[in-house]
Amino acid sequence: MPAGKTVRTVAVHLLPDLVEPPQLAGKTAVVIDVLRATTTVVHALANGAREVLPFLNVDDARAKAKLIGAGVLLGGERGGLRIEGFQLGNSPAEYSEQVVGGKTVIFTTTNGTRAMQRCKLAKRVLLASFVNLSAVCRELADESEIDIVCAGTDGHVTREDTLLAGAIVDDLSRLTGLEFKTNDQADIAADAWRSAVGDLTGTSPLGQALRASRGGRNLIDIGHENDIDLAAQIDQFDLVAELDLTSWRITAK
Amino acid sequence: MPAGKTVRTVAVHLLPDLVEPPQLAGKTAVVIDVLRATTTVVHALANGAREVLPFLNVDDARAKAKLIGAGVLLGGERGGLRIEGFQLGNSPAEYSEQVVGGKTVIFTTTNGTRAMQRCKLAKRVLLASFVNLSAVCRELADESEIDIVCAGTDGHVTREDTLLAGAIVDDLSRLTGLEFKTNDQADIAADAWRSAVGDLTGTSPLGQALRASRGGRNLIDIGHENDIDLAAQIDQFDLVAELDLTSWRITAK
Repeated sequence: MPAGKTVRTVAVHLLPDLVEPPQLAGKTAVVIDVLRATTTVVHALANGAREVLPFLNVDDARAKAKLIGAGVLLGGERGGLRIEGFQLGNSPAEYSEQVVGGKTVIFTTTNGTRAMQRCKLAKRVLLASFVNLSAVCRELADESEIDIVCAGTDGHVTREDTLLAGAIVDDLSRLTGLEFKTNDQADIAADAWRSAVGDLTGTSPLGQALRASRGGRNLIDIGHENDIDLAAQIDQFDLVAELDLTSWRITAK
Repeated sequence: MPAGKTVRTVAVHLLPDLVEPPQLAGKTAVVIDVLRATTTVVHALANGAREVLPFLNVDDARAKAKLIGAGVLLGGERGGLRIEGFQLGNSPAEYSEQVVGGKTVIFTTTNGTRAMQRCKLAKRVLLASFVNLSAVCRELADESEIDIVCAGTDGHVTREDTLLAGAIVDDLSRLTGLEFKTNDQADIAADAWRSAVGDLTGTSPLGQALRASRGGRNLIDIGHENDIDLAAQIDQFDLVAELDLTSWRITAK
C-alpha cells in the first residue's frame, strides 16, 4: 500500500442479518441479490427505465402506483412468481426497452428489498449483479470503506450471492492494485469465487455454478431456468445502479 | 450414487444462530471451534483426560468442580485468557499427558460451548478440529444426515471454522465415493477450503491461512500465536471426541 494512504476496507456480510445498520453508517454499501432482484433492476435501468422504486410490501407498492398514476409499471414477485395485478414479474427478460423505456418501475421483492433497508444508514448504496460487475468495481475503486450485503433467501446464505461478493472482492484488489483489509466473510467469498469459477473465460462455468445454487434450484423448480443464464452474463451492461437513500429511488448513474 | 441408497446430506452452518435446534433433531452434528476449543478438547482426550465437561458459565463450572472435588481440573478462557482460579487456559499445549492424564476437565469457553448447546436435539454430537480431521470423517462415513455447526466468534463467521467445515465436506465425498446433497454453505465452505489450502502437502499453507483468520489474528494479539501452529497439525491424533447429550460429557470414542 502506498505510504500515507488510509487503510481501505472491504467487508462481506453473507446475510443482511449478519450486519447491524449502524455498522454501515458512513460507508459505501453494495447490495447483492443475483437471482434475481439486483440483476432485474440493472436490466430495467439499462433498458431505459427512468427509475426503480423498491418496496418491501405489496400493498405499499400498489398504493404508490395508484398515487403516481400514468407512466408507472408494477413489478416484482412473491415465491418467485408474478404478483396478481402486476404488469411484470421478476425475470430480467421482461424488462425490455419496449416495456420499461421511460417508465417508473415500482418493484417489490422480499430478500433484495430487505437487504436495501439494512443499508439505510450507509453513505451510499449501489446494487450489484454479474451483468454490471466491472462497472460496480470501477465505481467502488475510489471508495475507502466498502460493505457488501448479500440478500440471501429467506434467511439462508446463498452461493450465488456469495460468489458475486467474492468476485467483487477479487476484482477490486486487481483493479486498484491495492490491498484491502477484509473480514473473514470477504476472504471466504473470494476463495469460493476463485475456486468455483476461477479462471473464467466464458459464462458457462458461472451458469453451472448458479444452477447448483439455492436460488438457481428454486428458479429451475418454478420454470425460470432461462433467468439463470441471463444473470450469468458478466458485464453485459456498463451501468451503475444506485439507491438514493433520501428519495428511495434507484437510478442509473 | 448406488441405486437404492438413501440420499445422504451434509449441511454446513457458518454460525450456530444460522441453524435452529429442531433442524438438527435426529441428525449427526459436528461442532467446530478450531481456535481453539475443539482443538484443545481433542488434545486433552488424546493425552488421557478421562472426560471433558463443557460449561457455558464460569460460576457453574466452578460449582461443578467443587462438587466433584478430587481429580478435577478447571480449564477455559474468557477473552482468550485463562480464568482466575482456573488451573488451565485454552491452549492445547497446556493439556499434556502429565497434567490431564486420568483427570476430569471442567471446561468453559463461550463460542464452542454455545455451538454444542445448539445441537442439543441431535442424535449425536462429534467435536472436530484439524488435529483429528480424518478420524472424524471416518466416523461420519456411515452417517446419512450430517450437520456441521461452526462456532464462529461472538456472532461473526470465522474463516478458520469455515475452512475445517469445507475440509470435512471435501474429505467425506472422497472417502465414501458418494455424492452428498449439500446446502449452499457447504458448497461455499468446500470451495473456500479447496481454494485456500488446495492440495495441501504440509501444514504450512494451513498455518498461514489460520494466521490470517479472525481467530488467528486474535490469538496473535494476545500472545498465543503458537496455538495456531498446534491447531494446524492435521491428523495429529486418531481420535473421535463425542459429546454425550444425556450426561453432557465429552469422551474419546
